[in-house]
Amino acid sequence: MNDSSYQKIIRAQAEYVRCIDDDRLEEWPNFFHGPCLYRVTTAANFRDGLEGGIIFANTKGMLVDRVSALREANIYERQSYRHILGQPSILSESGSLAKTETPFLVARILQDGDTDIYATGRYLDVYEIAQQEARLNERTVICDSSRIDTLLALPL
Amino acid sequence: MNDSSYQKIIRAQAEYVRCIDDDRLEEWPNFFHGPCLYRVTTAANFRDGLEGGIIFANTKGMLVDRVSALREANIYERQSYRHILGQPSILSESGSLAKTETPFLVARILQDGDTDIYATGRYLDVYEIAQQEARLNERTVICDSSRIDTLLALPL
Amino acid sequence: MNDSSYQKIIRAQAEYVRCIDDDRLEEWPNFFHGPCLYRVTTAANFRDGLEGGIIFANTKGMLVDRVSALREANIYERQSYRHILGQPSILSESGSLAKTETPFLVARILQDGDTDIYATGRYLDVYEIAQQEARLNERTVICDSSRIDTLLALPL
Repeated sequence: MNDSSYQKIIRAQAEYVRCIDDDRLEEWPNFFHGPCLYRVTTAANFRDGLEGGIIFANTKGMLVDRVSALREANIYERQSYRHILGQPSILSESGSLAKTETPFLVARILQDGDTDIYATGRYLDVYEIAQQEARLNERTVICDSSRIDTLLALPL
Repeated sequence: MNDSSYQKIIRAQAEYVRCIDDDRLEEWPNFFHGPCLYRVTTAANFRDGLEGGIIFANTKGMLVDRVSALREANIYERQSYRHILGQPSILSESGSLAKTETPFLVARILQDGDTDIYATGRYLDVYEIAQQEARLNERTVICDSSRIDTLLALPL
Repeated sequence: MNDSSYQKIIRAQAEYVRCIDDDRLEEWPNFFHGPCLYRVTTAANFRDGLEGGIIFANTKGMLVDRVSALREANIYERQSYRHILGQPSILSESGSLAKTETPFLVARILQDGDTDIYATGRYLDVYEIAQQEARLNERTVICDSSRIDTLLALPL
């Protein structure tokens, strides 16, 4: 992969996490293109081949629904999040498609100011490298922790 | 923005945090150029338009004073810090100036070895892209947490 | 350093941490080339010129031995790790060799799902910039914390 394509992926990832951490969740589904696949699973499930995992969405409507449910469940603003991503590794390339893996850490800032680590893991992404930008086609979020109750909420 | 300018910004940010984490605080004011604006505020204040926030400095002298005060207040070495930055997003460009937003996480390492998350948030920066480097003109640090007492100390 | 060489270093670092976080420790020694120097020390020791520090290895065999010892000591899978790296700073260049410094944070995910900060610090690396890739020749890991007992285990 040339440096220019690599930079496009990095910038697309930066915009994605900025959207979530800015709490602009209604814009989040627009980051997905083409097959529009979004999955969340745990490392343990992924190792066992259970990729379906905790969350599965493959239409933009399902992503929109997730945001609506999240907004209804969380009437009061209680906490915020901060994503910090590592550098992506290019796993494979085929035509204009690139499969990447990117480590992430999400910090959670509670109402009282306390900050802890909410989730860590890796994104398995498929991007289409277009003229001007890299477009996210698929994201499988593999969370390191198997304690998943609280992971059902926020887009990762 | 071309990749080369983007790389200059990334490298300038890396040098900035390295200076702080190396405890070379006396060099920190030299990272600011031109308007030399440094502000720290909270996400809640920033949302309410209270950008003045917690810390405001717009001359190099004010930055130097901050470091002096910090050194006097902390005679004994007690803790160290480690900044981890995410990728910058380019918000706008105008001539040689670029406005960027960059997520950050700062870990604090206490004397007894315990490590916690000291602060998370985002930098709103203005850089002048020069021939050899990107020069920081303005930095507004927006901390996610509203618990600000301990945030008055370290440059962010 | 040109952008292309800088990108090679970033990609080499991404592959390195991915290998460890994937628990493919047996592949880890292959990331070292040439002098094959791997050291772990603390910031306090490093400041005092005690670079030898906690761990010292300068042959691939010593690295292989470390992994074997680690596997024997940890029969049961108990925890996993996630490295998040910041951007490297280029400290110096000489011919095809480049000396860099890179901040890191390692999160530890315990069996029960709790996640904490395992270690923070910086890598002092020497890379050989080859045609296709950057090859790690030396890595000195300088941990911010001086509480070192648990640091003896995992490759950093």
